[in-house]
Amino acid sequence: MLNQKNVNLGKVRSSIRELFEYGKQRKAEIGEQNVFDFSLGNPSVPAPAEVKEALKDIIENTDPVALHGYTSAQGDYSVRKTLANYINARFKTELSADCIYMTCGAAASLAITLNALLNKGDEVITIAPYFPEYKVFTENARGILVAVAGKMGTFGIDIHNVKNALSPNTKAVLINSPNNPSGVVYGEEDIAALANTIAEYSAAHGTEIYLISDEPYRELVFDSDIKAPYIMNYYPRSIVCYSYSKSLSLPGERIGYIAVNNQMEEWKEVYAAICGAGRALGYVCAPALFQQLVKRVYNVTADISVYKRNRDRLLAALTEYGYEVIKPNGAFYMFVKSLEPDAKRFAERAKQFELLLVAGDDFGTEGYVRISYCVSPQMIERALPAFKALADSYKN
Amino acid sequence: MLNQKNVNLGKVRSSIRELFEYGKQRKAEIGEQNVFDFSLGNPSVPAPAEVKEALKDIIENTDPVALHGYTSAQGDYSVRKTLANYINARFKTELSADCIYMTCGAAASLAITLNALLNKGDEVITIAPYFPEYKVFTENARGILVAVAGKMGTFGIDIHNVKNALSPNTKAVLINSPNNPSGVVYGEEDIAALANTIAEYSAAHGTEIYLISDEPYRELVFDSDIKAPYIMNYYPRSIVCYSYSKSLSLPGERIGYIAVNNQMEEWKEVYAAICGAGRALGYVCAPALFQQLVKRVYNVTADISVYKRNRDRLLAALTEYGYEVIKPNGAFYMFVKSLEPDAKRFAERAKQFELLLVAGDDFGTEGYVRISYCVSPQMIERALPAFKALADSYKN
Repeated sequence: MLNQKNVNLGKVRSSIRELFEYGKQRKAEIGEQNVFDFSLGNPSVPAPAEVKEALKDIIENTDPVALHGYTSAQGDYSVRKTLANYINARFKTELSADCIYMTCGAAASLAITLNALLNKGDEVITIAPYFPEYKVFTENARGILVAVAGKMGTFGIDIHNVKNALSPNTKAVLINSPNNPSGVVYGEEDIAALANTIAEYSAAHGTEIYLISDEPYRELVFDSDIKAPYIMNYYPRSIVCYSYSKSLSLPGERIGYIAVNNQMEEWKEVYAAICGAGRALGYVCAPALFQQLVKRVYNVTADISVYKRNRDRLLAALTEYGYEVIKPNGAFYMFVKSLEPDAKRFAERAKQFELLLVAGDDFGTEGYVRISYCVSPQMIERALPAFKALADSYKN
Repeated sequence: MLNQKNVNLGKVRSSIRELFEYGKQRKAEIGEQNVFDFSLGNPSVPAPAEVKEALKDIIENTDPVALHGYTSAQGDYSVRKTLANYINARFKTELSADCIYMTCGAAASLAITLNALLNKGDEVITIAPYFPEYKVFTENARGILVAVAGKMGTFGIDIHNVKNALSPNTKAVLINSPNNPSGVVYGEEDIAALANTIAEYSAAHGTEIYLISDEPYRELVFDSDIKAPYIMNYYPRSIVCYSYSKSLSLPGERIGYIAVNNQMEEWKEVYAAICGAGRALGYVCAPALFQQLVKRVYNVTADISVYKRNRDRLLAALTEYGYEVIKPNGAFYMFVKSLEPDAKRFAERAKQFELLLVAGDDFGTEGYVRISYCVSPQMIERALPAFKALADSYKN
């Protein structure tokens, strides 16, 4: 009688990881260059040179007892202060160091935040398509994930759907923009309307609803006319979960933070709950070396231009082959309409062409597949004939 | 209505951290050299030179995409293989890489293991004195921590007490040797008797009971005639939670592992539950750079001779001043009998002499205080007159 829920979680893995493992095996069979693996969101561009230089300098010139020692559970003060100042300058907020809680990346940020906020049976609304681990984290915190469909055709926020989903049990609304898996960036209208809707509902029903923004892809916005609004500027009861995994190409190092908006009355209480949840989940502190690293390179990003080029190339080619693609403005994902009603069958068929695509069903949206294009441009070129052949196979 | 349990956990902090924060403040008031802070288990010796060299070499000579990328959730295969081989050679086990799950340190190891094993209401027996976070992690996994007193006078395992505590709800027995806070190392007789007791009870009642060993202090055993037995050699249904925090003086970097004994029938099921629990708690993988680090320096330790010297000096001096001390054979803690029945009052009185000691009450054992002697030998010399004056203050 182990914990059966966790046994299952461990066995099933996410279907994304499942496909990734299949890909590894297939590459061993037929050669790496013959498998077109678009399954995983593992950054393909190296960390920027500043990361290597800063790491070497920190290791060379810091007293190891201080460098590798425990930090406060919420993170080193000077690191938090630096990040708060940066956020304030960039987004016109007035956060203090005590609004920032350093974490082991975005997954930890979300798990901790949800455990801080939720009581048993509380509901968390999210917009489909959505990152499937949201359900895992919400249920671990004893809550219920309520996914509502995004706007068909654009996958922006459908306010009508959100309104219908709000209930006295709603504790939080969780958004992700730029979005995994669609690459869509919610615009100012989307965010403002969402904020108003939640605020109105809260006021009318005397409830407190938190807006959580999961932002691992914030820096990955490709076009200068596209802006990802900062939720703290629209809604006081808001929490930002940030990660350096994608912006600095450091996904394995697990470094990020939670920022609590101090424009809400009870922000210190929320922060305390975050500290408590982090403690209960076994997070003692975020990795100390990488805390010091982000203190130095907080305003640097990896060279994301390759993602933009990949997007442009794929978008043009797939459209030409007859695919219907939601134009992604950020992240490194593209959501493509399946060429048959059942996207799982479509993804299975794609495997015959050595294309590894993740069915949108896993993201709460049927009829689409996700393409992770954080891959080499060379692989995209090699894969294009396979995409064409896959499309053609439906034309017979 | 935040999660009130986590709000409280976040506000109260551990009383150890509380005292540590008091110490920081007091040092600012009267000067660092005048406060004798024995509150925290933060290693005082630097990481060994091999750590710095290996980190620099890894960063200089590894492709950053591979180095900083996601590893498998359970950790890089070659890292796990290396550690399994090392454990096998050292302890005559036959673990495979798939018995090892890399974690963000011992706290993560424990939180994940308990979430993997426990169902609501399951009981975890531990031996007092014990590390107070055991209760936090057990309760987060919806279990109940059942603390039984260690042997009075030696703080070894009192088998009679364990027998009395075993129940059909017992899911695990959690031990910690070398022990925080007593510094006691359980000998072979202790471990063998414990293993037999649990095995007999399980067989008689048709239940499955796991033996979990929390081993952040395994390498910190001071005397060559003292051995800390490896639980896998005594009990098949066993799990070791290891951390490099103290052995390599890297507590802030959060790197350790869980080793599942493959001598138990259901070990793959247990491993799957661990993978699932790690996922649910938001642990994506252990920090990738530090996984590569321990692959290189797994058999190195920091220079722990200073801890032995500190122990010898303190033990001799405190005994001379009239304190009753449980002789610690490992870790860097000493458990000293309070000079008045209420150890909390004793610890408060110690503060008047600028001595920061943690009352044993927080470790489930009344009438004692913990001294963390992972401090500089100079501080111990400066502190001795204060210890003497404290003892003398009870003689009037």
